[in-house]
Amino acid sequence: MTRVSLKSKIMEKNDRLAEVNRAKFKDEGILCINMIGSPGSGKTTLLEAAFRQINDKYNCAVIEGDVKTDNDMRRIEKAGVRALQIQTDGSCHLNAGQIGNMLSRLPISSIDLLIIENVGNLICPVSYDLGEEYRMIVVSVTEGEDKPLKYPSAFMSADMTIITKIDLAPYVDVGPEKLIANALSINPNLKIVSTSAKTGEGMDRFLKLLMNPEGVFDAKRSG
Amino acid sequence: MTRVSLKSKIMEKNDRLAEVNRAKFKDEGILCINMIGSPGSGKTTLLEAAFRQINDKYNCAVIEGDVKTDNDMRRIEKAGVRALQIQTDGSCHLNAGQIGNMLSRLPISSIDLLIIENVGNLICPVSYDLGEEYRMIVVSVTEGEDKPLKYPSAFMSADMTIITKIDLAPYVDVGPEKLIANALSINPNLKIVSTSAKTGEGMDRFLKLLMNPEGVFDAKRSG
Repeated sequence: MTRVSLKSKIMEKNDRLAEVNRAKFKDEGILCINMIGSPGSGKTTLLEAAFRQINDKYNCAVIEGDVKTDNDMRRIEKAGVRALQIQTDGSCHLNAGQIGNMLSRLPISSIDLLIIENVGNLICPVSYDLGEEYRMIVVSVTEGEDKPLKYPSAFMSADMTIITKIDLAPYVDVGPEKLIANALSINPNLKIVSTSAKTGEGMDRFLKLLMNPEGVFDAKRSG
Repeated sequence: MTRVSLKSKIMEKNDRLAEVNRAKFKDEGILCINMIGSPGSGKTTLLEAAFRQINDKYNCAVIEGDVKTDNDMRRIEKAGVRALQIQTDGSCHLNAGQIGNMLSRLPISSIDLLIIENVGNLICPVSYDLGEEYRMIVVSVTEGEDKPLKYPSAFMSADMTIITKIDLAPYVDVGPEKLIANALSINPNLKIVSTSAKTGEGMDRFLKLLMNPEGVFDAKRSG
């Protein structure tokens, strides 16, 4: 067995299990979003800020992926939302089988929105379909404007990109405008919102997108 | 052939080639440092700032690893230092074979310091010995204080940790102190320096460490 065929087998198995997950999400009317971003890009903080606003209106749940610790799960629970933790113990991404196993531990018939916060990594999680309906790339303005160009697969595979920490833009030599332009040069169909969980800027637009990903959305113009 | 044994074979080959590189570095009197950090952690910016100060005193060279683009190579060349680019085209880490191939393109007998700037990823590059003498983890203060706890293998495997962007510490809810304490809780032998390439803070200490990694170093006390 060659390396390539082994990799193909792993990916085939993942894709098969992803379809099982996707069918389950569809049957149960669950909106599932796979969140991918670098370590420290602000994924959990963004969710905490979002849940504070929508917690009483929707049944939300989060599956957290981390190499180690259940810090993020505990943060989400503190924000009043049910969360489960997958500790990958060295592995650099979540796979569809892990998500399938977690679904049996969730009251899925009552869930409206399921967020999967992937392992902090802008490369490896991109190859693994988890059965999500939408894929979201989270990138902070402090990471620099060239990230879409340097990690194009992530942005190509995504439906939406959330730029975080824009309150820090004045202190770094990076404007969100260039980051947005670079992301759109990789994937013109991306819906993009710039946010600051700290000041609240852009959070309304983020929530609008989260609640209605296919809705009319002029993020390209107003960033 | 099982998945495990295939992985073992890949790692064995890498380790063998890493030893070849290491012997070459030793023979030629080259200090080789493998720099690992998340996308946007500030690895290239740190190098640019360092080279501005040591460029005329030492023969430096950089091997850049990126999924796509040669942006970082061009930035390093602009800073007056010879740089080669490895584009991994999807792969999430550099391996020892790639480094060995690059060495034939460098005038290694005249090089004092060789920096390998790995692909932006705090997980996968950790497993791949490149033959470096020292391993450096770069983490920005904006990534949050818990990164050593969430990505412990990186910090366990390293000799030094450079905290970047400390000029942004007043604007985020993260002090470098907690980040340092968490890193030392994972690996008490780490030499740690806090830096800002923008203000120049800590750059002298960083250069001192770079030039004399085994030297007496009181970073633990003064961060």
